[in-house]
Amino acid sequence: MKNLLGGKGANLAEMCHLGMPVPPGFTITTEVCTAFYQSGKKFPKGLKDEVDKALARVEKIMGSKFGSTDNPLLVSCRSGARISMPGMMDTVLNIGLNDETLKALIAKTNNPRFAYDSYRRFVAMYGDVVMGVKEHILDKVTGEVDKNADPFGHAIDKLKADKGYKNDTELTADDLKGLVVTFKKIIKDVLNQPFPEDPREQLWGAIGAVFDSWMITRAKSYRKLHGIPEDWGTAVNVQAMVFGNMNDNSGTGVCFSRDPSTGENYFFGEYLINAQGEDVVAGIRTPKPINRQKPLPKGVNSTLIDDMPKIYKTLESFKEKLENHYRDMQDIEFTIEDGRLFMLQCRSGKRTGHAALKIATDLVNEKLITKQTAIARFDPNHMTQVLLPTFDTKSEAYINRQVLTGGLPASPGAAVGQAYFSAKAAEDEAAKGKKVILVRLETSPEDIKGMHASQGILTARGGMTSHAAVVARGMGRTCVAGAPITVDYGKNLFTIGDEVIKAGDWVSLDGTKGEVIKGQLPTKEVGLSDEFHTFMKWVEAEKVMKVRTNADTPNDSRVARSYGAEGIGLCRTEHMFFEADRIDHVRAMILANTQPEREEALSRILPMQREDFFEIFKAMDGFPVTIRTLDPPLHEFLPHSDHEIKQLAEKFSLPLQAVKDRIDFLHEQNPMLGLRGCRLGILYPEITSMQARAIFEAAVKATKEGIKVFPEIMIPLIGNEKEFAAQKALVDQVAKDVLGKSNVKLNYLVGTMIELPRAALVADKVVEAGAEFFSFGTNDLTQTTFGLSRDDSGIFLPRYLEQNIWETDPFVTIDFEGLGQLMEIGVQKGRSADKKLKIGICGEHGGDPPSVMFCYDLGFDYVSCSPFRVPLARLASAQASLKASPKDLKKKAEKEANPAKKPLSKQAEYKKKLAKKLAETIAPLANQALKSLKPMAKKVLPKTPAKKKPANDKVVKVTPKNNKGKPTKKG
Amino acid sequence: MKNLLGGKGANLAEMCHLGMPVPPGFTITTEVCTAFYQSGKKFPKGLKDEVDKALARVEKIMGSKFGSTDNPLLVSCRSGARISMPGMMDTVLNIGLNDETLKALIAKTNNPRFAYDSYRRFVAMYGDVVMGVKEHILDKVTGEVDKNADPFGHAIDKLKADKGYKNDTELTADDLKGLVVTFKKIIKDVLNQPFPEDPREQLWGAIGAVFDSWMITRAKSYRKLHGIPEDWGTAVNVQAMVFGNMNDNSGTGVCFSRDPSTGENYFFGEYLINAQGEDVVAGIRTPKPINRQKPLPKGVNSTLIDDMPKIYKTLESFKEKLENHYRDMQDIEFTIEDGRLFMLQCRSGKRTGHAALKIATDLVNEKLITKQTAIARFDPNHMTQVLLPTFDTKSEAYINRQVLTGGLPASPGAAVGQAYFSAKAAEDEAAKGKKVILVRLETSPEDIKGMHASQGILTARGGMTSHAAVVARGMGRTCVAGAPITVDYGKNLFTIGDEVIKAGDWVSLDGTKGEVIKGQLPTKEVGLSDEFHTFMKWVEAEKVMKVRTNADTPNDSRVARSYGAEGIGLCRTEHMFFEADRIDHVRAMILANTQPEREEALSRILPMQREDFFEIFKAMDGFPVTIRTLDPPLHEFLPHSDHEIKQLAEKFSLPLQAVKDRIDFLHEQNPMLGLRGCRLGILYPEITSMQARAIFEAAVKATKEGIKVFPEIMIPLIGNEKEFAAQKALVDQVAKDVLGKSNVKLNYLVGTMIELPRAALVADKVVEAGAEFFSFGTNDLTQTTFGLSRDDSGIFLPRYLEQNIWETDPFVTIDFEGLGQLMEIGVQKGRSADKKLKIGICGEHGGDPPSVMFCYDLGFDYVSCSPFRVPLARLASAQASLKASPKDLKKKAEKEANPAKKPLSKQAEYKKKLAKKLAETIAPLANQALKSLKPMAKKVLPKTPAKKKPANDKVVKVTPKNNKGKPTKKG
Repeated sequence: MKNLLGGKGANLAEMCHLGMPVPPGFTITTEVCTAFYQSGKKFPKGLKDEVDKALARVEKIMGSKFGSTDNPLLVSCRSGARISMPGMMDTVLNIGLNDETLKALIAKTNNPRFAYDSYRRFVAMYGDVVMGVKEHILDKVTGEVDKNADPFGHAIDKLKADKGYKNDTELTADDLKGLVVTFKKIIKDVLNQPFPEDPREQLWGAIGAVFDSWMITRAKSYRKLHGIPEDWGTAVNVQAMVFGNMNDNSGTGVCFSRDPSTGENYFFGEYLINAQGEDVVAGIRTPKPINRQKPLPKGVNSTLIDDMPKIYKTLESFKEKLENHYRDMQDIEFTIEDGRLFMLQCRSGKRTGHAALKIATDLVNEKLITKQTAIARFDPNHMTQVLLPTFDTKSEAYINRQVLTGGLPASPGAAVGQAYFSAKAAEDEAAKGKKVILVRLETSPEDIKGMHASQGILTARGGMTSHAAVVARGMGRTCVAGAPITVDYGKNLFTIGDEVIKAGDWVSLDGTKGEVIKGQLPTKEVGLSDEFHTFMKWVEAEKVMKVRTNADTPNDSRVARSYGAEGIGLCRTEHMFFEADRIDHVRAMILANTQPEREEALSRILPMQREDFFEIFKAMDGFPVTIRTLDPPLHEFLPHSDHEIKQLAEKFSLPLQAVKDRIDFLHEQNPMLGLRGCRLGILYPEITSMQARAIFEAAVKATKEGIKVFPEIMIPLIGNEKEFAAQKALVDQVAKDVLGKSNVKLNYLVGTMIELPRAALVADKVVEAGAEFFSFGTNDLTQTTFGLSRDDSGIFLPRYLEQNIWETDPFVTIDFEGLGQLMEIGVQKGRSADKKLKIGICGEHGGDPPSVMFCYDLGFDYVSCSPFRVPLARLASAQASLKASPKDLKKKAEKEANPAKKPLSKQAEYKKKLAKKLAETIAPLANQALKSLKPMAKKVLPKTPAKKKPANDKVVKVTPKNNKGKPTKKG
Repeated sequence: MKNLLGGKGANLAEMCHLGMPVPPGFTITTEVCTAFYQSGKKFPKGLKDEVDKALARVEKIMGSKFGSTDNPLLVSCRSGARISMPGMMDTVLNIGLNDETLKALIAKTNNPRFAYDSYRRFVAMYGDVVMGVKEHILDKVTGEVDKNADPFGHAIDKLKADKGYKNDTELTADDLKGLVVTFKKIIKDVLNQPFPEDPREQLWGAIGAVFDSWMITRAKSYRKLHGIPEDWGTAVNVQAMVFGNMNDNSGTGVCFSRDPSTGENYFFGEYLINAQGEDVVAGIRTPKPINRQKPLPKGVNSTLIDDMPKIYKTLESFKEKLENHYRDMQDIEFTIEDGRLFMLQCRSGKRTGHAALKIATDLVNEKLITKQTAIARFDPNHMTQVLLPTFDTKSEAYINRQVLTGGLPASPGAAVGQAYFSAKAAEDEAAKGKKVILVRLETSPEDIKGMHASQGILTARGGMTSHAAVVARGMGRTCVAGAPITVDYGKNLFTIGDEVIKAGDWVSLDGTKGEVIKGQLPTKEVGLSDEFHTFMKWVEAEKVMKVRTNADTPNDSRVARSYGAEGIGLCRTEHMFFEADRIDHVRAMILANTQPEREEALSRILPMQREDFFEIFKAMDGFPVTIRTLDPPLHEFLPHSDHEIKQLAEKFSLPLQAVKDRIDFLHEQNPMLGLRGCRLGILYPEITSMQARAIFEAAVKATKEGIKVFPEIMIPLIGNEKEFAAQKALVDQVAKDVLGKSNVKLNYLVGTMIELPRAALVADKVVEAGAEFFSFGTNDLTQTTFGLSRDDSGIFLPRYLEQNIWETDPFVTIDFEGLGQLMEIGVQKGRSADKKLKIGICGEHGGDPPSVMFCYDLGFDYVSCSPFRVPLARLASAQASLKASPKDLKKKAEKEANPAKKPLSKQAEYKKKLAKKLAETIAPLANQALKSLKPMAKKVLPKTPAKKKPANDKVVKVTPKNNKGKPTKKG
């Protein structure tokens, strides 16, 4: 029921089933939220009635009445999305308090301080969350909303200062009473409207606020980051309040069934006596641990096990039961009200990557879950985490770090080094043994060696898939891209605000968060744990679709192989062209005026390329190696600055003008759509022939040395079967020649990238022309399908994501809806011509888990990704195999693109349609949700014998009935 | 039978059927040619036998024997493609002559001069055509093939000089005999192999040479130009020789049933006495007219009607019969052998555009054809011709013109003016009343006004769809693009070889041929004839799919309307932004840092845009006007040179660095794929709003003045329904506002361009999001589908066309196979969401006849093209309506992409397969062809009573049996 009730609501219901004490309440379903937005933020008809009925049931159970001045019921109102979004959305506690019900609460609890404390909390929370006081306070200087405004906190601080208090606990009942008055005045002053005293108005305000909070910026950002669809909506959980702040026999806490940082299997948690949940989150007081499994923090002398041993025991038994029930590490919130334990929430606990591995392998070893389950539920992001060095987040230096600015978290990890501003400087300084951060406006293929020599790369321009980002991810270098810094190459420095970072100054980059940090932070080196190897062995056993790597060097090949890569899916030969010992020959080739001149220059590159390929074959002994023939436009190999051009002319003894003319001639308006890929090989067949020769000669040499070689030659940017046929003919000719002379037998394939829409549309023809494999180049295919240069999308991409025009960056996750169609056409047509056609992907998407699964759904034979993403892709491949219905993801994408779920901006159009539809469907839906909550209210509570039942205490107390038994199935 | 027999073969057979005297012979079918190439230039098995059999039949009819030293049969060997390719392929005459058969020929004709003349012609022709002597003569300086080599001609010239002759007719039999010896020696010297004396070897050499000539450069170019597929192949017609050079009672000529230049209905033709066909073509002697319909040329005193009145009468009756039979103007070749008329060829005659109109309307008026037939067979190129000024090709200046160089015929017409090298100079000089040719390396949107002010545009870079080409065609300006000239902006001149053209020098451009001509040629202004108007009325009656125009100015709108445009399909608003009075406001908008600043600048552009739109609505009163919101990247509006940037900074009182920074910020790697189209409107909604306001305010104003306005607002570069929804919401909001205030009722539509692959793939979603029409932007759709920048394709496009990778330039004619699929998906998905969705095209293809027909097949409502292409598009639209099966074109494209017809470069692969296949199928095919030729040899000749039959004359003479009757059906 998670989709309808949200995670929190479903888990509350489940805890009821398991016989645990849960405050009675009900859930308003996520579909109501969706309807709320679709109808222009109006509550669907019929909802009020349903809520009234549900509330009446809660009142009945609790024996109190919402808004009663005699025995008032207070409720909380909490959000609950399908997937937990901790801390992202709003919560309102203590709803139902006003000057009148307050009196009854005092009378009922005989605890005026508690009552006023609850009241002032409620007024402040309501003022902030529901009425939006903060958003109405303007900065006196700028006239814009003052983001630092906190009038209620300010009032408390002032009072404490006036009274000389240090802690909130020192506030007396009278102080708190005064604060209520102050707070109400603030609300009136700021908003020119009073704090609502009517409890029902309060409740509906709170419900609306929870719905509203689905659309606040931080919630949207969180969803964007975690790929949660906008139209899922949140549920609202309305529950009777229980009070951890009633007295010192009360408290509230959070615990985990295992340590979420390390994964160690012990009961971990902390709690605060006499507090409400928000105090734990706010971190005003130091919480106590629940037990003595780890050394106590300074100044803490007791734990829950000491303070309330029975409660602890009960809580521990609940923990056991929940972990056994959910078969995962649980994150549990609880409140103790006057010595009685209430379970407020449980959910699968967030954890670090290392903890995730430890927990997963432990759970399997404990036979709680199968290996398959461990794999299926493993969060791919955890896999990334464990492979990367991180900052030592517990170090003082880290805690006090000075974040200069934030950029895009383009390539994860932690990098520390001295800033340098050119690839050459980076290389030179690194050669001296320095750790270097390369800082550029943007990077280009010429910077490759400098990037390689650096610990991390920081750029001022470009998005998640800019050159810097893509190359850095490929190399496993940390990268923060598109940071709002001003780079001055002339002065060798960059500035951000008043801060100036000069060449040689230390900078730290957090590629996972996108932080640019001043100075030198300590890092932790992370070795691969035993758990990693165990887990990956299981992954390997489930995986069907193979995982290769994109690697251009023997070293990358070896790294990838150590991560489990089963061959190379993309070896870009052009990176080899930039090596210092050959760039001159490459340039000579480009500047040549005739084919013989070009062939002469190429003949000098041949032995070097042959050696490259030999080393790569060696590193990939036994696995296929896909080598792409030259792809980038030739001008990328030529210098740009006048000075360099002059140098080049001198070196080649050419007239300066001739060199300039050639550069002008090769200049392109849109290099992405110009003379590149197989077009180079069509225009200059001698380039393809040279590369083929280098490949086959290297393969022959390797074979003679006993290395098993499976070269797969890949022709890029095919749009037409004739292009392919022409290039394949060249390759086959060279193969015949080289292999014939050597007497070596070699199995090789010639295939093509599918990276243009037209290639997908005529894929059958390309196979009929002899293509023996396809590799989807989804980077370029995305660029052409969207008409979108990834280098130039930076300006509007944020707006597109913000406005929800794109749910995700199409360069990160395959656009299933559009690109997916073309890929499907390509696969279907390709396989229609050759049933067994080998199909893979070598775009950046090959390392993105949802994209990997999509490829599996389409029947791919392999995915290929950068070395550091190989374990992640292997995991995703195994998860894809384990999925019951591998078409799920696509269906999901289709469903989300369904016109019934239009962008919210089209509210007006939908109002009309919905008016009718709502009347028919929303009320029953709300009803259904209520029915599903009945157990939570009905079943558990009646069965719970009251510990003590004073006549004036109408709040129903609950204790678990059946701690170790199976969850009750009835109801 | 045209496809199998070729045009010539089929028409020969037809003339036999009509009872006309045709020299007996047979045809080797086009499929043999295809097989010849597929098997690596080998004759299919079985062909020799079939040819022998057919030859035996001819021998029987002629009563002579091929190779006989007693009574030798001589034959000709002529090419014949499905579609006539005049002068493109090779012909060999007089086959069968050698030193022995010659003697017999002398004996038989008693005319040694004739015999030696035939012999020397044969040796030279065979040496050139079959043996390729010329291609083996190297230039002594360069070592490359000497393209000017003409050893046989040189030998004749030398002999004539030695003897003091002026004309070839002065050559005596002995002279000619000597030439035969000389020629044979040349062959032996150059090729180191003798001239083949064996007649059968001669025949097979000639057949092979005709097949070979299918692939020579000029034939390939011709096909490319006329869109004739490579794999159609040519047939070979082998016929008994008849001799126009036998004596003065012989002759040869060419005639047309109507005047091919003017279309006038009189019998037009010329002939030469005592000559073979090649003499007429070579133009060595001045031919005589066949009659006195027009004044005789100087030095000519008699005509065929005078010289051989009976022959003339017969010929005239044949002409009548053929025109009545084919119901079109006929081009007829004939030979008179010793007083007997032979028909060598007939075909539909080539004609000028004006003649085409005249003939078409005349034939309809004469009731020979219906209006529908006139339309269906009208060549669209003729329509282009009649709209454009041309050079006065009869003027001395034209005949002696100095062609500086050739470029791409980018926009047809004849332009004469003084060269200037910047848009500004062009504008300034034109303002002084000068005629200007704008010469640029390439043009950019900033040059628009300069281009408009010019007569023609000459560029050194770019292809048929470069900016210059597209804009020039749109404006109706002549353009030669990509000419190999060197432009020096600094010195204000361009050079080609040693020629230097400075600013102010006169240049003439032939945009139809692509010639760049030195100096000032006289042109002819062409008014639209009555025939044009009559014809277009008929076209209009047949046309179903509408034709709109792409027009950005009131003037263009008026021109287009005068050509019959039914509205505007694309009005590009950005061109208006470049006007001198507004570019500053546009730049202010771009340089603005905040939305209010931007809005302020936009508010100054608003009234100007409003006025533009008002004038356009006025010009298009009663017709829909599709206005596209701003499309190009903003940097196109900013200056590039340091000087201009400095000026701009000063004008706006901005720091130079700030302007530079903004320009840097807006700089894009691939502007085509960057911040443009609706992305601009998403990022800066105020631009869309301003444009919508200008449109609706103009519409209101026009409506109030009684003008009927139907605005269609078109959002460019949509890739996603949410983009569209967001932009439509803005437009609708402004409409509501403006219309609400004015109380004017207005029907308007908001639609989108489909110009990205993704848009086609999600077209249903876009319609569901509210799109009310689609306009296919096939320029950009081609760019993205092919991953091909039209500005950058110039370097490799020629190679692609040459290697047949593309049959046609995809920017000229829609790529039916690839792009066509996407268009079909777009149409199908769009109409699935809205059955009546209005669909059009506004890419350049909208004026290309095959593309127009393709759009018709897909069910488009309209095409839109530049004003000067409107009549052409109307014709194509009518032709599409008239086509029996409108899917023909697509089927053809599919068939041509069929793997059974692979590129010839893949010969090797096919050899194996063919070896088997040929044995089974080719021989029967040859057989079938022979059967179909039997009538030509058998049926006509036996029925033809010989006029006189001397015993030693074994050549069968023929006269028509039944001039006026139906063609005989038997045999």
